[in-house]
Amino acid sequence: MAMQSREIRLAARPKGEPKQDDFTFASVELKNPGNGEVLVKNLYFSVDPYMRGRMNDAKSYVPPFTVGRAMEGSAVGVVAASRDDSLPVGSLVLSMFGWREAYVAQARILQRLDASLAPPSTFLGLLGITGLTAWVGLWKIARLQPGETVFISGGAGAVGSAACQLAKLRDCKVIASAGTEAKVKMIREDLGANFAFNYKDGDPLKHLMHAAPEGIHVYFDNTGGPQLEAAITALKERGRVAMCGAIAGYNHPVPGPRNMINVIGKRLRLEGFIISDYIGSLHEFLGDVAPAYKSGKIRSYETVVEGIDQAPEAFMNLLHSGDAHTGKMVIHLTD
Amino acid sequence: MAMQSREIRLAARPKGEPKQDDFTFASVELKNPGNGEVLVKNLYFSVDPYMRGRMNDAKSYVPPFTVGRAMEGSAVGVVAASRDDSLPVGSLVLSMFGWREAYVAQARILQRLDASLAPPSTFLGLLGITGLTAWVGLWKIARLQPGETVFISGGAGAVGSAACQLAKLRDCKVIASAGTEAKVKMIREDLGANFAFNYKDGDPLKHLMHAAPEGIHVYFDNTGGPQLEAAITALKERGRVAMCGAIAGYNHPVPGPRNMINVIGKRLRLEGFIISDYIGSLHEFLGDVAPAYKSGKIRSYETVVEGIDQAPEAFMNLLHSGDAHTGKMVIHLTD
Repeated sequence: MAMQSREIRLAARPKGEPKQDDFTFASVELKNPGNGEVLVKNLYFSVDPYMRGRMNDAKSYVPPFTVGRAMEGSAVGVVAASRDDSLPVGSLVLSMFGWREAYVAQARILQRLDASLAPPSTFLGLLGITGLTAWVGLWKIARLQPGETVFISGGAGAVGSAACQLAKLRDCKVIASAGTEAKVKMIREDLGANFAFNYKDGDPLKHLMHAAPEGIHVYFDNTGGPQLEAAITALKERGRVAMCGAIAGYNHPVPGPRNMINVIGKRLRLEGFIISDYIGSLHEFLGDVAPAYKSGKIRSYETVVEGIDQAPEAFMNLLHSGDAHTGKMVIHLTD
Repeated sequence: MAMQSREIRLAARPKGEPKQDDFTFASVELKNPGNGEVLVKNLYFSVDPYMRGRMNDAKSYVPPFTVGRAMEGSAVGVVAASRDDSLPVGSLVLSMFGWREAYVAQARILQRLDASLAPPSTFLGLLGITGLTAWVGLWKIARLQPGETVFISGGAGAVGSAACQLAKLRDCKVIASAGTEAKVKMIREDLGANFAFNYKDGDPLKHLMHAAPEGIHVYFDNTGGPQLEAAITALKERGRVAMCGAIAGYNHPVPGPRNMINVIGKRLRLEGFIISDYIGSLHEFLGDVAPAYKSGKIRSYETVVEGIDQAPEAFMNLLHSGDAHTGKMVIHLTD
């Protein structure tokens, strides 16, 4: 009873914007699970901006994707066959085996999820690595304090929408930006930000000075580029920047912030982080955030795209600030 | 017995490079010291790159100089008349009343120096705020560890020459840069750096990759500009940048680092500091550094300029990477 799984492979390393031709589809025959292994059918996998970096052949904190091999990323699936007692058939599991329909893997490298906590896709969004990223960036890296003012770029995105909500939960003043009017509206009305603006509408600094004339304490950076420069100017003394993403520069180089001299004069701290260093905080994170989710105080914002065939296009859209996506973009496997 | 003191005032705020016309000389009559006051005759005062920032009318961590008023800065002088028991005549004192021959001030705002420790000008250099700046940047901000590799820009300057020596004392590998061949030679031969280069000789990154193919742990930034960009690329994972000065951009704007995305991927930390926050560490600093100075392991590098009349020109030279100065630039009052 060999099973077929369709998967998406990296066909070529993109120059600038990824194109459909940079991806290719293939079907592989899965072997039956051996001792200690399970067969998992994916329900959802995520497409994330950071994957653009893995498409390049550059040394980085995660190795590049290999041309001709399936891409990787977070996925939630259900165990369909098991040769390991720790993961019986029907278990919900989180893995890095995204961009494919199904896979066989050792049970010990998969993370079992509590299906009673939330719908499966939530574990790719608010209650998964995405939410953890927002939580670590705000509280561990930037050390945001209750009552402080935080600016969050990419506020309607996966990490940004989580960060806006988490900061509001602790009574922070939240300023957030996005690239379309619909997203700006979502930030203001759904996420409860105190101030939202379209970063394409003039100088971001103008908006920051209007929203917080007294300055900001923290900048949660999902974009880099001009918004980083504006934030450096807007930060108060001893301000902090949690550098989480730099989507403005993923496809094309962007100029650097010309005001780095302010980092000295205002004693700023700019610190980058990689969420894989903080997987050990997942339990603490869930203990903090899951109750707020259960009680309805915060939500997991997701854009669900139907069918693995749509994954490359969904990913390419994600790198642009269109209205096609807010929150976490996940691919629903409709098989 | 009223005393005259010549002083240098800010005549106009410079546009770009300061010019002689931006300074003016005046003579003021000092009143006799009142209760709790002393009259101090300066022996040396320092001219420092950061003063360029104070010539602008910009909000900063230190207030701007006032047009038409005497400039300020570190000075070492001798008490010539005293109405305060804590500072008898002949005491050596450190103050912020530079750019003038003499002054009357309250004794409690002056810092008494131990004249037996070193010659007076040393308290403006290695054993003063300058040395403290190097020490704080290396050990408190960048948290450089023994055996690690540090890159120090402006290595022949006041703070840089102290930083090179302090890092070598703790067995660090030191790479340092300067803008003339004579300074590069000084860094290599006098300061004992493992590698020295001229930052004007091609891409600084080329030199860093040659000196430390495995990468650097820490960058002590005295310049900003292209050397900051090169350092961000050369830093190893979890590298740290102590942002101390940005002389490359003091007179004219410079482009920002285009590789800030590396701050995320390598989990870097860039942190600015202002030495006035660390005056409380002066005692700990002297306890650490004075013995090494006394035993001849490290030296205070100073460029002494004779006469208050030369101060404006000395300051203007300081903002260029010429051979006219290495180490701390101090004005000797020859009256």
